[in-house]
Amino acid sequence: MIKLSQRQKEIIDLVKEKQPITSEQLAGKLNLTRAALRPDLAILTMTGILEAKPKVGYIYSKKPSYSILYDYIRNIKAKDIMSKPVVMDEETKVYDAIVYLFLNDVGTLFIENKGYLVGAVSRKDFLKTAIGGTDMHQVPTGVIMTRMPNIIWVEAGDSAYLAAKKIIEHEVDSLPVVEKVIEGSKELYKIVGKISKTNITKLFVKLGNDV
Amino acid sequence: MIKLSQRQKEIIDLVKEKQPITSEQLAGKLNLTRAALRPDLAILTMTGILEAKPKVGYIYSKKPSYSILYDYIRNIKAKDIMSKPVVMDEETKVYDAIVYLFLNDVGTLFIENKGYLVGAVSRKDFLKTAIGGTDMHQVPTGVIMTRMPNIIWVEAGDSAYLAAKKIIEHEVDSLPVVEKVIEGSKELYKIVGKISKTNITKLFVKLGNDV
Repeated sequence: MIKLSQRQKEIIDLVKEKQPITSEQLAGKLNLTRAALRPDLAILTMTGILEAKPKVGYIYSKKPSYSILYDYIRNIKAKDIMSKPVVMDEETKVYDAIVYLFLNDVGTLFIENKGYLVGAVSRKDFLKTAIGGTDMHQVPTGVIMTRMPNIIWVEAGDSAYLAAKKIIEHEVDSLPVVEKVIEGSKELYKIVGKISKTNITKLFVKLGNDV
Repeated sequence: MIKLSQRQKEIIDLVKEKQPITSEQLAGKLNLTRAALRPDLAILTMTGILEAKPKVGYIYSKKPSYSILYDYIRNIKAKDIMSKPVVMDEETKVYDAIVYLFLNDVGTLFIENKGYLVGAVSRKDFLKTAIGGTDMHQVPTGVIMTRMPNIIWVEAGDSAYLAAKKIIEHEVDSLPVVEKVIEGSKELYKIVGKISKTNITKLFVKLGNDV
C-alpha cells in the first residue's frame, strides 16, 4: 500500500490550515523553491487531495478524485456483499411467517413457488397486517405479500452501487439477488442471495476501515 | 476536478488486461521508453490505482490508496447526513405509536421526557409486541421501549463512519444523534437528529454518483 511522503503530508497540513495558499507561499513556508515543490503539488492535485484554483491558490479538496472513488465503488459487485436469503412458501400463515422472521433475525422474507421468486414480505407489511385486525393465524402470507412483477431485484453481477440506488429509489429494505431462467416464453427468477441496507452499511464500514 | 491523462488511462487498461505486467512490457506495448513511462507509473502507484509487485510487475489495485479513501470517508460527519428524528412520549399507547410510526414513515420512534431522550422503540419491538398477545390499545409505549442508558447514540460531530459502525456492532436500525447537557451531577441527552441504515445507504449512493 503506497503512502504519501512526509513532505506531501506537510503540504496537506499547511493547505488545510492556510487555504487558499499559493505555491509561492507554500514554498516559502517549507524553505523550498517553487520548482522543487512542483512534483509534489502535481501528485496532490492529480489524486484530487488538493484543488488548484487559478489566481487563488491551493485548497484542500473535500472529495477525492472522481475517477478513483467512483471506479472503486462501482467495481464492487452484488455477489461480493450479498447474504443468504430466507425463503418461505405463500401458504404459510402470517403468524408463523412472523415467527420465522424472528427466528432468522431478518427484516424480509422472500416467497418461492417451485423454486422461483413469487413474492416478498417485510417487517413493515407484517406490522401493518398486525394492527389491521386480520386473523394472523388464518390468513396465508400470499394475501399480504408484494407479488411479482412488483418486486425490485438485482443480479449477482450488478454493482453494489446499483443495489443501493434501487433500495433508496424504491424505498425498500431489501432486494433479492436473482438469476434469470427462460422457460418457454416466460422469464423466471431463481433467488441466489439478498442485499439489504444492512449489507450496504457493512460495506460502508469496510470502506472506512483502516486495513 | 482533475482527470487522468489519456496515456494513464491506456496504462490502466493494459494492466487490467495483462496483469501482472512489467514496466518493460508496458513500455513495449506503448512504444515508449521505460524512462518516459516512469512519471505516469509513479502517479498511478501513488494514487493506489496500480500496485507494483517487486519482481512480478504491475497489477490493478482493487482498493484505492488507504489515505485517500479512508481520509475522505472518515471526514463525513454525522451532522452532514442525519435526518429529522420522530419523537413521542412514553405514555402514548402502543397502537397509537404504531399508527404514528406509519404516518411518519420511519422505522424507529425516539421517546422524550421533558425534552430529553429516555427511550427508543423500533418496528421490530412493535411487531414482537403485536404477536405477543398484548392489548396494544391499553399498554403504553414506555413498557416495551428500550430504555436509557441502553440506547446507542452518536454526537453531531462524530463521523458517519462511527455511526455506521455502531449500527452494525449493536445490531440496531437507527441511532439518535444527541447533544449532551450536564444538569447537576447528571448527564442528559437532547435529541438533535437520527442516523439510520437508510442514511448510510443514501450516503453510499452519493459516493458512487458521478457528479
